[in-house]
Amino acid sequence: MASRSPSPKLSREATVKTVGLIVKRGKPEAVTLAHRIRDRYRHLTFLTEQATAAELGLPPLGANEALGERCELLVVLGGDGTLIHAARSLRGHPVPILGVNLGRLGFLTEVPIIDLFTVLDDVLQGRFSVEPRMKLSVRLVREGARVLEDEVLNDVVINKGALARIADHELTVDGERVATYKADGVIVSTPTGSTAYALSAGGPIVHPALDSILVSPICSHALTQRSLVLPPHRTVSIRLASEVADVYLTIDGQVGYPLQSGDVVEVQRSHNRVHLVRNPHVGYFGILREKLHWGL
Amino acid sequence: MASRSPSPKLSREATVKTVGLIVKRGKPEAVTLAHRIRDRYRHLTFLTEQATAAELGLPPLGANEALGERCELLVVLGGDGTLIHAARSLRGHPVPILGVNLGRLGFLTEVPIIDLFTVLDDVLQGRFSVEPRMKLSVRLVREGARVLEDEVLNDVVINKGALARIADHELTVDGERVATYKADGVIVSTPTGSTAYALSAGGPIVHPALDSILVSPICSHALTQRSLVLPPHRTVSIRLASEVADVYLTIDGQVGYPLQSGDVVEVQRSHNRVHLVRNPHVGYFGILREKLHWGL
Amino acid sequence: MASRSPSPKLSREATVKTVGLIVKRGKPEAVTLAHRIRDRYRHLTFLTEQATAAELGLPPLGANEALGERCELLVVLGGDGTLIHAARSLRGHPVPILGVNLGRLGFLTEVPIIDLFTVLDDVLQGRFSVEPRMKLSVRLVREGARVLEDEVLNDVVINKGALARIADHELTVDGERVATYKADGVIVSTPTGSTAYALSAGGPIVHPALDSILVSPICSHALTQRSLVLPPHRTVSIRLASEVADVYLTIDGQVGYPLQSGDVVEVQRSHNRVHLVRNPHVGYFGILREKLHWGL
Amino acid sequence: MASRSPSPKLSREATVKTVGLIVKRGKPEAVTLAHRIRDRYRHLTFLTEQATAAELGLPPLGANEALGERCELLVVLGGDGTLIHAARSLRGHPVPILGVNLGRLGFLTEVPIIDLFTVLDDVLQGRFSVEPRMKLSVRLVREGARVLEDEVLNDVVINKGALARIADHELTVDGERVATYKADGVIVSTPTGSTAYALSAGGPIVHPALDSILVSPICSHALTQRSLVLPPHRTVSIRLASEVADVYLTIDGQVGYPLQSGDVVEVQRSHNRVHLVRNPHVGYFGILREKLHWGL
Repeated sequence: MASRSPSPKLSREATVKTVGLIVKRGKPEAVTLAHRIRDRYRHLTFLTEQATAAELGLPPLGANEALGERCELLVVLGGDGTLIHAARSLRGHPVPILGVNLGRLGFLTEVPIIDLFTVLDDVLQGRFSVEPRMKLSVRLVREGARVLEDEVLNDVVINKGALARIADHELTVDGERVATYKADGVIVSTPTGSTAYALSAGGPIVHPALDSILVSPICSHALTQRSLVLPPHRTVSIRLASEVADVYLTIDGQVGYPLQSGDVVEVQRSHNRVHLVRNPHVGYFGILREKLHWGL
Repeated sequence: MASRSPSPKLSREATVKTVGLIVKRGKPEAVTLAHRIRDRYRHLTFLTEQATAAELGLPPLGANEALGERCELLVVLGGDGTLIHAARSLRGHPVPILGVNLGRLGFLTEVPIIDLFTVLDDVLQGRFSVEPRMKLSVRLVREGARVLEDEVLNDVVINKGALARIADHELTVDGERVATYKADGVIVSTPTGSTAYALSAGGPIVHPALDSILVSPICSHALTQRSLVLPPHRTVSIRLASEVADVYLTIDGQVGYPLQSGDVVEVQRSHNRVHLVRNPHVGYFGILREKLHWGL
Repeated sequence: MASRSPSPKLSREATVKTVGLIVKRGKPEAVTLAHRIRDRYRHLTFLTEQATAAELGLPPLGANEALGERCELLVVLGGDGTLIHAARSLRGHPVPILGVNLGRLGFLTEVPIIDLFTVLDDVLQGRFSVEPRMKLSVRLVREGARVLEDEVLNDVVINKGALARIADHELTVDGERVATYKADGVIVSTPTGSTAYALSAGGPIVHPALDSILVSPICSHALTQRSLVLPPHRTVSIRLASEVADVYLTIDGQVGYPLQSGDVVEVQRSHNRVHLVRNPHVGYFGILREKLHWGL
Repeated sequence: MASRSPSPKLSREATVKTVGLIVKRGKPEAVTLAHRIRDRYRHLTFLTEQATAAELGLPPLGANEALGERCELLVVLGGDGTLIHAARSLRGHPVPILGVNLGRLGFLTEVPIIDLFTVLDDVLQGRFSVEPRMKLSVRLVREGARVLEDEVLNDVVINKGALARIADHELTVDGERVATYKADGVIVSTPTGSTAYALSAGGPIVHPALDSILVSPICSHALTQRSLVLPPHRTVSIRLASEVADVYLTIDGQVGYPLQSGDVVEVQRSHNRVHLVRNPHVGYFGILREKLHWGL
């Protein structure tokens, strides 16, 4: 069950000295905003990724340094995609992430520009709460060997190319056979990911405080194969049981990996969580109402 | 989280002496089967409900006696509807229920007639496992007063009559506003109930070992109002916010209650569980495959 | 196929002399608006229904008179529900209907208050086009006899009460068996009705210029029973094949009729159409975008 | 509207002299069956495609000859995919096609092996009816020029690769803007194709006698973008309005073509139809019941 305590790295008593900054690539407003933040909080040390260091006028990280080791807070200026990228860059370090959306409200980037300084002032003085979000760990097993291992905040997607034939996806849970999905693909999501690709594929909305694993087929041939919400301590395995070509594994929409017939994708709850700094002015259901136009 | 230990009433060491029998009304095969069971296990005491005592040739329960107090095992001969009725008659007593389906496999009545004696032999010798199933407790609050309180294994349904106007269902979770569903109704389900009415209304399949509360609108006007899977420790409230007539609260499809404008239906996880005796020859996913034709 | 020619009653050359006015009951703005219209077009004769004659200061229709016989144009001030009611009051007379929405844009009431006089000026001078909308005729056959016959612009709904058991709806098309829907109900819609109840039940959007009959089950037990779009010249029959109680036939959401086991509901394309005056400033797809928030 | 008259090439009076045979590749039963047919009907001339001529012991077609020009009946031994391939090979010639399924019933291959000779005897004596199926013609327009033109029996699919970003698909009908689908892709189907990919993507079932064009988004971001059923005489255009990479046009699941940003895919009803020989022992609704398990 998701604990709601602050993350170990930034307790209410702690003083933030080093802040990581991650900006959306190719977005000048994000760079401007980063400079505004540096101007306002001159007593703090700022760090960023190697790729954006020059643009932000910051010293680059060392080759073997991880942002997650060095900073006590990570500020992300961009959209949900940028935040997912940022969360990956922490490599499991429990650093709170403050997501600032530059345009439309995101599911993960809760803080609009207008609230940025108010929220950041509070955060730097320890007045904030974090929402821990469950992650999944994924392994690709090929002929008995692990050829890939990673973690995701949103989803693990097995998906075919536009011209490929549909594949047979054999789903097992803790070794017990569930079903074979003849489908364009299968999405395995965290609760956070339930409002991402899985929603477009017909899945339910899973509250982020309910640790669970959501399995949704994409355009299944069998119309009765609905989304499946599973307990978090189960291991979900999907084996490509038919001849396949042009089928890929996608990790949080960011990393793609070609799959072969017989490949097994194993998914479990990760020991790590992502710690989102909450915007006190907006709650989870408020974001749903806004993003899904429930008020209209 | 659902524990998988045997229920307190029937441990592996315990000896069953008294067995409750509940048969589907108006089903002669069920009565015949009940007699076959009594003939085979003559050393046991059998009990049944008042309504069927004469038909089964059993002494009726006393007026204030509950089946759940008197027996260590409850055998249900019928379909899922009969089992739900039987579970209600236990009034929270943690007596294991063995569900026998007389025709087609049920989601809850896992044991077909052909396996009945084999499974029952094993159960009576303590060789079995039970699957605890989460229940919901529901309260109807009218003008500040609780006018109804009950427990469900499947679902709490707010639904309008055929000729009634659609109502505004204001959903809050732990007091936080979620959305107003303009819809024919709303279903609040346990994981067990996710394969009942909620599935027909477009909901996902929630594994019974994942304690959670599923909220699904029925024919919502807003096409973006998907099913919502919530943590089990939250309180779900639905307030009828518009003028309503001919709107009802239905408890496990068995008890109906007319609702008024302003009524609030509150739903929480119950402290009680239903303990289903598992058929070792068939698992949860096997039942899904069979019932939803996934193999075809 | 729907012809797009003006209706016979109001050609571009014709002069409108008599205008029917139908206002939404209990809506003072509608009455005010009706007076504004009368003030502006003093050379015209206005008529209304008996029920609203006093409120509008108009002489009541005679007991046997139909609005459709007397007027060359019908102006409806209200929402889609009022327009459907108004279309019924025409009893098949091909009088063009100008639907004015008082609040939010309707699927049928295309003209907002701001455009009312501009559009009406044009209409009265013959500068307008009408969109003929297909209607369905419905018959209820009980023990071989027709006990009800009516026409609908939106839909014919067979639906159970909140506490009733689901019924078996045996669907045949031109006498050929299609399927038995075990469901809360079945909706038979015109293309116009595809954006009404059928959309909430999961149906597609059928363009109003495609004459066709849409059959959509409501909360079907069989998850594979999708909506069915049928040719317009077919006869759709639904027979209640199980014991039923508390099941109703609803005609355009306005008239309810209790059904019995064995009842047959027969639906065909009507010879009559409803002729909607089009708002030149908004098209069918524009209404879809607005009503379904496609632009957001 | 689909006419139900026999095709011009094979009237009830005509005598079949030349039969085309198309067999599923890599399926020995299909070859065996082809030989059985040749043995039984020795008075007929048989033809096949170049690729299978040697295997069937038939003289190959000339390089410029089309099967459709030479034969009066086409017998297809395989599944729906083989029949679609066969229909393409006719290049618009109105030759009746008899589809024989080797295994499970197909939507298009209605005749099982057990009925093959009975049905074929009847067909060769002119005792049969054909069902004309609407086709779509598709054009790919790039920078004002037609770079591809083809016909389909099932569907035209615009779809992204597994790793590609979702594209903006701007839909217009007869030049009028409908909506922009942010989606994995868009399917434009015939009624025949409504039970193919479009069904997996959430679409309705459109009866093959209802000429119409079905547009279904694939995994749309906007949850309100349902399938759209359009009149047959409209022109559907989809323009790729965003930067795209790895997006393809697929024609009846058989031909793929890479798309670029700005490409326009135009779809209209074709003048040609596919003429399926009907199996008198099974109707359209019978096939639906069987394929979609409606009887269970």
